[in-house]
Amino acid sequence: MALLRSYVSGRWHTPQDAGRPLHDAATGEEVARISATGVDMAAALDHGRRTGGPALRELTFHQRAALLKALASELREHREELYQLSLRTGATLGDSKFDIDGGIGVLFAYGSKGRRELPNDTVYVDGAVEPLGKGGTFLGQHIATPLRGVAVQINAFNFPVWGPLEKFAPAFLAGVPSLVKPASQTAYLTERLVRLIVDSGLLPEGTLQLVCGSAGDLLDHVTEQDLVSFTGSADTAQRLRTHPAVVRGAVRFNAEADSLNLSVLGPDAKPGTTEFDLFVKQLVTEMTVKAGQKCTAIRRAFVPAELADDVAAAAAERLARVTVGNPASEGVRMGALASLEQREEVRRSLKALLDAGSVVSGDPERVDVVDADAERGAFVSPVLLRAADPERAEPHEVEAFGPVSTLLPYTSTEQVIELAARGKGSLVGSVVTGDAEFARELVLGVAPWHGRLLVLDAEDAKESTGHGSPLPALVHGGPGRAGGGEELAGIRGVLHHMQRTAVQASPTVLGAVTNRWVPGAPRQEGEHPFRKSLAELKVGDTVVAGPRTVTQEDVDHFAEFTGDTFYAHTDEAAARENPLFGGIVAHGYLVVSFAAGLFVSPEPGPVLANYGLENLRFLTPVKPGDSLTVTLTAKQITPRVDADYGEVRWDADVTNGEGESVAKYDVLTLVAKEQRQ
Amino acid sequence: MALLRSYVSGRWHTPQDAGRPLHDAATGEEVARISATGVDMAAALDHGRRTGGPALRELTFHQRAALLKALASELREHREELYQLSLRTGATLGDSKFDIDGGIGVLFAYGSKGRRELPNDTVYVDGAVEPLGKGGTFLGQHIATPLRGVAVQINAFNFPVWGPLEKFAPAFLAGVPSLVKPASQTAYLTERLVRLIVDSGLLPEGTLQLVCGSAGDLLDHVTEQDLVSFTGSADTAQRLRTHPAVVRGAVRFNAEADSLNLSVLGPDAKPGTTEFDLFVKQLVTEMTVKAGQKCTAIRRAFVPAELADDVAAAAAERLARVTVGNPASEGVRMGALASLEQREEVRRSLKALLDAGSVVSGDPERVDVVDADAERGAFVSPVLLRAADPERAEPHEVEAFGPVSTLLPYTSTEQVIELAARGKGSLVGSVVTGDAEFARELVLGVAPWHGRLLVLDAEDAKESTGHGSPLPALVHGGPGRAGGGEELAGIRGVLHHMQRTAVQASPTVLGAVTNRWVPGAPRQEGEHPFRKSLAELKVGDTVVAGPRTVTQEDVDHFAEFTGDTFYAHTDEAAARENPLFGGIVAHGYLVVSFAAGLFVSPEPGPVLANYGLENLRFLTPVKPGDSLTVTLTAKQITPRVDADYGEVRWDADVTNGEGESVAKYDVLTLVAKEQRQ
Repeated sequence: MALLRSYVSGRWHTPQDAGRPLHDAATGEEVARISATGVDMAAALDHGRRTGGPALRELTFHQRAALLKALASELREHREELYQLSLRTGATLGDSKFDIDGGIGVLFAYGSKGRRELPNDTVYVDGAVEPLGKGGTFLGQHIATPLRGVAVQINAFNFPVWGPLEKFAPAFLAGVPSLVKPASQTAYLTERLVRLIVDSGLLPEGTLQLVCGSAGDLLDHVTEQDLVSFTGSADTAQRLRTHPAVVRGAVRFNAEADSLNLSVLGPDAKPGTTEFDLFVKQLVTEMTVKAGQKCTAIRRAFVPAELADDVAAAAAERLARVTVGNPASEGVRMGALASLEQREEVRRSLKALLDAGSVVSGDPERVDVVDADAERGAFVSPVLLRAADPERAEPHEVEAFGPVSTLLPYTSTEQVIELAARGKGSLVGSVVTGDAEFARELVLGVAPWHGRLLVLDAEDAKESTGHGSPLPALVHGGPGRAGGGEELAGIRGVLHHMQRTAVQASPTVLGAVTNRWVPGAPRQEGEHPFRKSLAELKVGDTVVAGPRTVTQEDVDHFAEFTGDTFYAHTDEAAARENPLFGGIVAHGYLVVSFAAGLFVSPEPGPVLANYGLENLRFLTPVKPGDSLTVTLTAKQITPRVDADYGEVRWDADVTNGEGESVAKYDVLTLVAKEQRQ
Repeated sequence: MALLRSYVSGRWHTPQDAGRPLHDAATGEEVARISATGVDMAAALDHGRRTGGPALRELTFHQRAALLKALASELREHREELYQLSLRTGATLGDSKFDIDGGIGVLFAYGSKGRRELPNDTVYVDGAVEPLGKGGTFLGQHIATPLRGVAVQINAFNFPVWGPLEKFAPAFLAGVPSLVKPASQTAYLTERLVRLIVDSGLLPEGTLQLVCGSAGDLLDHVTEQDLVSFTGSADTAQRLRTHPAVVRGAVRFNAEADSLNLSVLGPDAKPGTTEFDLFVKQLVTEMTVKAGQKCTAIRRAFVPAELADDVAAAAAERLARVTVGNPASEGVRMGALASLEQREEVRRSLKALLDAGSVVSGDPERVDVVDADAERGAFVSPVLLRAADPERAEPHEVEAFGPVSTLLPYTSTEQVIELAARGKGSLVGSVVTGDAEFARELVLGVAPWHGRLLVLDAEDAKESTGHGSPLPALVHGGPGRAGGGEELAGIRGVLHHMQRTAVQASPTVLGAVTNRWVPGAPRQEGEHPFRKSLAELKVGDTVVAGPRTVTQEDVDHFAEFTGDTFYAHTDEAAARENPLFGGIVAHGYLVVSFAAGLFVSPEPGPVLANYGLENLRFLTPVKPGDSLTVTLTAKQITPRVDADYGEVRWDADVTNGEGESVAKYDVLTLVAKEQRQ
C-alpha cells in the first residue's frame, strides 16, 4: 500500500517505518499509510527561511500573483485526477468540487487581487502619509514587509485541497514560504495536490513544503518571525496557542475552529414567501454538503416560534429526499463522514443534543445507504432536531460535526440576538428575510460575534454563494470559540503575513524607501515627463507650467458652454452671500481643465491616456484675475507584467499667484514601456 | 498616609486593609498605600459591559471624538497638579511633560482623527464594496462593530499618565469601555488622573474604571468579547497570554514589552557632519529621559567600527554634563529610577552586560547626586558601555531598564542587519544617516523586526520627535520579544477594539446596514436633491439629467479654450493610431464638466460648495456624436457635530447613448443642515 511522502528540504522524504493505515471513508479499505518518521522539522523550517523566503522576496507582488494564476491554471488541468481520489474521503462529486474547484478559485482570486490591489513592487505602502510636523520635513508612513520566517499551516481533514490552498495563497503573495501539515485522515489527497504543484516546477524551491504525518517537534522550532495557522478543533487550537515556543516568540497564531453557526429566519418569511423556501433549502444544503463536515455549516437554525412547525415540516420533506451512500454512485446526494472515528464523535454529540431536543427528521442510530455497506463506511443519516426550549445550554455549546442541525424557536428579535451570543463566537451566520430593517437590526446585533454574515433574500438569492462558502475576498474566521482568527479577506490575508512598520523620515528618505514621490521630496525638471517612456521616467520627474490668468470672461464662458450656471459662478450678489466664497468663484472643473491645458504635451508620445483622477480637493477659491500655475510630478510608476505599458500616478498641485494651493489631486495615466519606433 | 482607592462599579472603593506602602523615588518617603482588597473584579467587568458599553454605543464616532477632545482640554487645565505629583516618581519636569502632556496629546489626536477619518455614525465601513456576482445583486462589504466586552488595560510603572491614556483613547473611540490597572509603584499618579477624569463628569458612567493594587482574579472573568492589553516585561506578558480564561475565549491580547531597540549610525556620518552630532545627542537623550526607563529607549547603538572611538568620546563628553539628583531641583537633568527595586534590577543587568563590554562613561556602582540622598533615592549614573565584539550574546539579550546603552561597532551593512535581528523583535529602531540609499537598505533590512523606524538626518532633525516617542498616528508595538502587539497607529488602534465582519447581502440590505447607498440599491427621484437640506436629504435621493450630445465642435472648442490640445482630441490621424482610442475622443474633463452642467441646480440653496471629487475613472471613450446622461445619487451623509453643515458624497455615473458608463466618480459637497430662512 502507498506510503505517503513528505516534501521537505527540497526533496521527497519516504518515512522510515511502515506508517499507520488510512481508510476509504465509504468502503473501509486501506487507501494509504502515513508517517512522518525521520522528517527533520528544524531543517525543513530552516530550508523555508533560507531558500524559499529569499527566492520569494526577489519577486514583486505582481510576479508572485502571476505565479499563483499559472498554478491555478495548471491545477485546473488535473482536476479529474483529484476528483477521483477525493471520492475516497467520502465526498460526492459536488462535495469534491466545493473543495477542489474552491481551492483553485482561491489561487485565481489572489492572482487577480494581487495585480489589481498591490503594487508591482516588493514593499507594501499601508495607508496615507502622516505629516508629523508643520514644516513638512518630517513624515510618517506605514509600510509592510514580509516576515522572514515560515508560515506553518496545520489543516483539518474536511478540506484537503481548499484548506491548504486558502492558507498558501495569501502567504505566497506576501512573500512568505509555507509548510503544510494536513490532517492524517485525508492527507493522501493533499499529498497528491502538492505532488502536482511540485511537478509543475512553477514555484521557487522552498516556498511550499509538506509534512504528512504527525507534527512531532515542529512547533518547538518556530521563532518570532514564523507564523502558525491552524484549522481544526477548539481544544487543539488552545493547545497550540499555548505551546512554549509560540508563546516565547509571540509567534503570530491564527486559529479557525468549528463554531455553532446560526441561521435566522425573519418573522416576515412566512410559508409561501421566497425567503421561507430559501431558508429551508439552504438549511438542508448546509446539513448535507460534505455530510455536514464544514466548520461553516448551520448548527443553530432560529425560526419564529409561530413558524417552527412549518419549517420543520418543509425541512423534513426535503431531507427525506436525500439519498445517502457510495459517493461515486449516481443519484447519491450525501456521502460518508471522513472516518469511523468521526461517526463515533457525531453520535456522541448527538446524544448530548437529544437531551435538549427531539428529532424532526432522520435517525440518530441508523441509515439506509445506496451501493455501500452502512457499517464499514462512515455513513450517518442527516438529523434535524428541534429544541422545545431555545434557552437550553446544549444547542449553543455542543457541535455534532456532521449532518446535524437544531431548530430553535424564538419569540423576539432581542431574544434571538441574545441567544446568538450564547455560541460565544462563530465563523458565519445567515439571516433570511425580505425585511431590510430586520436584517439591519440582526446584522448589527450579532456582528460582534461573527466573522461573516450572509443576508439572503429574493434579491440576491440567485447570485448568492451560500451560507457555508468562505470567499477569498471576505473574512474567514471568527471571534471567541471560532478561534479568534482571520484568514482570506482579500489583501488583509496577505498583510497578516507581513510586519507593519511605521517609518518616520524626511521626504527624501521616505521617497527612497517607498519608491514613491512624497510631498517635499526632490523634483527633477528637464525634458517634459510626458515625453518619457516608463523605461526613462523617474519618480520625481516634474513639469511646472503656467501661469494662466483666469478671467471673468473665462468663468462666464465656461458656465455658458458647460451649462454649469451655479450661482457662485454667475451671480455676484448671491455668491457674496455664500459663507465659503464671498463672491464669484471659478468652477473647480474649469481649474482642472486649465491645469490640463497647461501641463499637456500634445504630440503623440509614450503617454497613451489619462484614465482617471483621485483625491481631488479644492483648497482655495479661485477668483477672476487669479493666475494659475500647475506642478505635475511623477509619484508612482507601475509597469504591468503582461502588457507593453503601465500606470503612472502624477501629483498635481495647482497654485495661485500667492503660491497657495487651489487644487490638489492625483492624475492617473497609462504610459508605454518604450518609445514607439 | 493616603490609601489609594479604586473606581469600580460606579463608585470609589476604599480598600479593606492597610495596604502596602509606595515610596517617593527620590527621597524614599512613603507617598501612599495601595491595596485592591475587596474589589469585586467580576462585578467591575460586568458594570463595564452592562453600563459603559451600551452608553458608548449610543454615541457616534464623532460624538465620542468630541468627548475625548473635551477631556483633553479639561486635563490640560490640571497639568500643574499632575506635574507636582509626578516628581515623586523620580521624574524631572521634562520627564513629566513627556508623560503627562504626551498623554493629553493622545486624547487630542484621537479626538481629531476620529472626526476626520471616521464617519459620524456607529458602524465603521471597512474597505471597498466587493462585487460577489456578475449581476450586481450580491455584494460583500466588511464592517466593524465594537466588541461587547471591556478593554482590560494593565499598565507599566514608567508612564502613569501616558500609559493609561494611550490605551483608553482608542478603546473609547471604538465604543469599548476601559478598566485600567496601573503598576503599583506609581499608581498614585494614575489614581489622581482618574479622579480628575471622573470629577469632570464628561464621560458616561462605566466607560472608565480603575483598579489600584493587585489584579487578583480579574483575568479569570474575561470572556470572548473582552480584550486584554498589557505593557510591561516579556515574562509577565507570557504569563498573561497563557492565562486559561484568555486562551479559552481566544481573548484579544495585546502585549507591548521592553525590547533591545537599536540606533544605527551611517558610515557617511563622520565627525563634523550634522548626522554624527544628531546621533550622539539622541543617544544621550534616550539614555537620560525618564532615567532611561522607556521601553523605547536605545539599548544597542551600532556605529561603524572606524567611528567607534569618536562616538564614544563625543557621547562621554555629553554624558559628563548630565546632572543627577532631586528631580525638583533646578539644573537637574536626570532624576531617580522609580524605586529601589528597579535600581537593583538595573545593577543586576549591568553586571551581565559588563561581561561583554567595557565602560565608556558613568559608574555602574555609584553616582553623585544634587539635593538628594544617593542611597535613599533610587539614583544611578548613566552608563554607556562598549562591546569589543558585537557578536557577543549579552547586548542583544540583556536589557538594563535604566540609563544604560551599549556601543556596538559594525563593519558592513549586512552585519548590522543580521545583528539587528538578534534582538528578536523591537518596538523601535533609528538610523542616523545623510545617505538615502543606506537608509533604504537599513530600513527594508530591519523592518520585519520593528514596529517603528526613525530615519534621522539634517533634513528632518528640526521637526523630528525623536527615537523614543511613540506617536498616536503611528504603530506602537513590535514583533517577537517586543510582545507581538500593535497599539495606536491612528484608526488602526480603534479597529483593534472592534470585530471585523464581512456582510454579504443584496444592495438594498447592504445599504440599510451601512447607511450608504451602494450600486444597485434603490434610488428615489423627485425634487432635485440639491434643493434639500441635510435634514431632508436621504441616502438614495437621485437626479437623472441629460441627454446632451457631445459634438465635434465641443471637442475642438474645449481644446482651444483650455489649451488641452492632446493629439487624441485634435488630430484624427494620430488618434487613430492610439491603441486605446482608435479615433478622436472627447476630453475627460469635458465629460465631467458637461455632467456638472447637467446635474447642477443653479439657484442658491442648501448645497454650499463642491469641495472635491474622488475615484474618477474614465471607462469608455466618448466620441463626437455620443450623448451623455448623468445619474447623481446621494451616497453618504455626514452632518458635522460642530457646524451648521456637513458633507454629502454623491455617486456620479455618466452614461452614453448605449447606456454604457463612460465615467464614474464621487462628488463631494458641503450642504447646510437646514434651509436658509
